[in-house]
Amino acid sequence: MNSKPNLNSNERIDQLTAHGVQVIQSPEVFSFSLDAVLIADFCRPAKRADRRIVDLCAGNGAVGLFIAHKTAAQIIEVEIQPRLADMAQRSILLNGLQKQMSVLNLDAKQIFASVAKDSVDTVVCNPPYFPDLKTSKKNPNQYLAIARHEIKINLAQVINISSQLLKMKGKFFLIHRPDRFSEILALLGQAQMAVNQVRLVYPKADRPANMILIEAIKNGSQQGMRFLPPLIVYGQNNQYSTTVRQILHGE
Amino acid sequence: MNSKPNLNSNERIDQLTAHGVQVIQSPEVFSFSLDAVLIADFCRPAKRADRRIVDLCAGNGAVGLFIAHKTAAQIIEVEIQPRLADMAQRSILLNGLQKQMSVLNLDAKQIFASVAKDSVDTVVCNPPYFPDLKTSKKNPNQYLAIARHEIKINLAQVINISSQLLKMKGKFFLIHRPDRFSEILALLGQAQMAVNQVRLVYPKADRPANMILIEAIKNGSQQGMRFLPPLIVYGQNNQYSTTVRQILHGE
Repeated sequence: MNSKPNLNSNERIDQLTAHGVQVIQSPEVFSFSLDAVLIADFCRPAKRADRRIVDLCAGNGAVGLFIAHKTAAQIIEVEIQPRLADMAQRSILLNGLQKQMSVLNLDAKQIFASVAKDSVDTVVCNPPYFPDLKTSKKNPNQYLAIARHEIKINLAQVINISSQLLKMKGKFFLIHRPDRFSEILALLGQAQMAVNQVRLVYPKADRPANMILIEAIKNGSQQGMRFLPPLIVYGQNNQYSTTVRQILHGE
Repeated sequence: MNSKPNLNSNERIDQLTAHGVQVIQSPEVFSFSLDAVLIADFCRPAKRADRRIVDLCAGNGAVGLFIAHKTAAQIIEVEIQPRLADMAQRSILLNGLQKQMSVLNLDAKQIFASVAKDSVDTVVCNPPYFPDLKTSKKNPNQYLAIARHEIKINLAQVINISSQLLKMKGKFFLIHRPDRFSEILALLGQAQMAVNQVRLVYPKADRPANMILIEAIKNGSQQGMRFLPPLIVYGQNNQYSTTVRQILHGE
């Protein structure tokens, strides 16, 4: 690392100390949260240099940046919002990862003009969680609203695009809300993907799960879903648990 | 608590100290295990005296006996094996629960001759977990093999019978293996039931789940599955966790 960062107003650089990755953030348009860290930790990407990874709904590129140290494969960040795609591009330079990573600033629904079907080994995605209902309260900030609500892309589209991108037996890693798990399973099934592993994320040991990490395999077997050990975010005294501190800081 | 128990050879009485319930057990034919205790704890049965509960695949009746203190409703134990149904009947007498509980010694597939469709408020079930494959290693003891393997009834039949028994909005409580969760969800959907709540049971905090507790509602909404706090069976030093001790002993 690396070229001098080129920061716009209201941007800052956050560092994930476990692996020294630096990410350009902006509270005004997009900041990665724990979700991005957890899906990156959960993701088991293809490793070889001749393999290809897509980070769909990449935002400021945090997830792709966080998995880069796990793999020699090419990582393509796909982000529809130009300002966020630009932040991702500058973070790639900041970390000196321009040989491994690239950004496509386009609507994921148009991706097949740039990335061929059945050509990707791993898709990872931290998509908008909330349906775009007329009744749903959205952030008046359009950048944040698009990242949180299914305004530009919905869950069915995310899953269909991912399945089409993947080679047979390619892997899809998704973080989402547990209350949409039935829907996710049904959509995965329709898209010829089967869940292999799941990890529930519980805010505290005595609270219901508020996130779910999902690994699915294209043309995989419907049998044998594994629920990995629970990931509990906060321990006593509302401090991050040992597991989360390990993921964040390598402690 | 109550009539003098009438024990056959190789039978013993086990007591669940949290509620003082006594259960006739026999290692030779059937002993309840932690599974029965956990599904009984998880079950939220209909409460009123004019309501009706069915404990399907009841074995020696442990689950029904453990939920009796939660409800004034009638509890019907359904068990195909005569020797186990007889144990259940004697345990009911032993606990003085003969006004609230009864045993039907029949094949669940024949239950509609005795219990009308759409007449039950709560079905609870701790079914055989393992498919009856030619390749699967079964216990040479036929009593135990029938309790563990889908020899007399399979998952699809259990779910279909439960759905048919239930009134609209009636609740179904099931304990099973997490690796069959996809299949369970698909079968529930086909039987017009939707999962409402789930609780994963992990043997230890750092191990994958080995049981799943499921609450489904007949004609319920497919939206909004909740994953309740993780249930971790063993804590440090391989002792039961505080949660399990609480369930077992009310500690």
